[in-house]
Amino acid sequence: MNLNKFIRDIPDFPQPGILFRDITPLLQNPEAFSYSIDKLCESVKALGGEAIVGIESRGFIFAAPVAARLGLPFIPVRKPGKLPAERKTVEYSLEYGSSQLDIHLDALVPGQGVVVIDDLLATGGTSKAAAELVEMVRGHVRGMLFVVEIASLNGREVLKDYECSSLVRFD
Amino acid sequence: MNLNKFIRDIPDFPQPGILFRDITPLLQNPEAFSYSIDKLCESVKALGGEAIVGIESRGFIFAAPVAARLGLPFIPVRKPGKLPAERKTVEYSLEYGSSQLDIHLDALVPGQGVVVIDDLLATGGTSKAAAELVEMVRGHVRGMLFVVEIASLNGREVLKDYECSSLVRFD
Repeated sequence: MNLNKFIRDIPDFPQPGILFRDITPLLQNPEAFSYSIDKLCESVKALGGEAIVGIESRGFIFAAPVAARLGLPFIPVRKPGKLPAERKTVEYSLEYGSSQLDIHLDALVPGQGVVVIDDLLATGGTSKAAAELVEMVRGHVRGMLFVVEIASLNGREVLKDYECSSLVRFD
Repeated sequence: MNLNKFIRDIPDFPQPGILFRDITPLLQNPEAFSYSIDKLCESVKALGGEAIVGIESRGFIFAAPVAARLGLPFIPVRKPGKLPAERKTVEYSLEYGSSQLDIHLDALVPGQGVVVIDDLLATGGTSKAAAELVEMVRGHVRGMLFVVEIASLNGREVLKDYECSSLVRFD
């Protein structure tokens, strides 16, 4: 299935000059959404994932169904002020601005093999921060999966230490 | 299955005097997470849901797997500045503070029967806002499902025009 036709281009969002790739038409189409989850599940199995880390908040939309379908723990990585228990924090820069992500200290069993799932690979900053968080709580990153990749932003270079794949690639 | 034991109490979060019900242990336990999704799917079928609205961002964690499992459209209701296309907005008050939610104008087919899913029913303000958004884009709210309900906050009174149910109820 060609997923490209379920991704809508929105110019100048959230800032002038940014072409936003909107996945809501994909979510609205059950065949396209289901196909995406199938493909992500196949990749998680190939990577030997034992737990799924989803990045707030669009990452949750793909990561949670994958965890549920495969019967794996779902671990949220969240923006600051959201996770209530003891946590680790990483600061990172993103395509427009900078931010922080948190993970709970007890999110993983030490040595657990983790697959990180997010909707978008842009500069790779967010995913790199998520991988660092996984490692800070003693998990092992088996790979990273994305729905959409913006290849021209070179996120793969930032994530060169990790196995990465995406379902749809734009230049 | 008794889901209560997978919900952790965190006192004074996010503010002094608030007892936060943390669902991350439930997400971490594949049996408990899978059981929650099963139960939500049964309720969606009983309500005749034709599309699933998930409320950002913890609502996505339950709503997306339900939509994926049942093969229904997944519609995100999001915080301001997140949805990129033409949208409708509702302001609402919540347990601590106030906020806004958006929905895309083209999110639903007119008359489509919608089930709204969120992790938490507290005062009901967020869910009421989501229901109003569904109605603004001409959807029909068939019901609302929650994982955790804080009964003492009387959210059911605010949502009295809607069918509501929850998996775990606290006083």
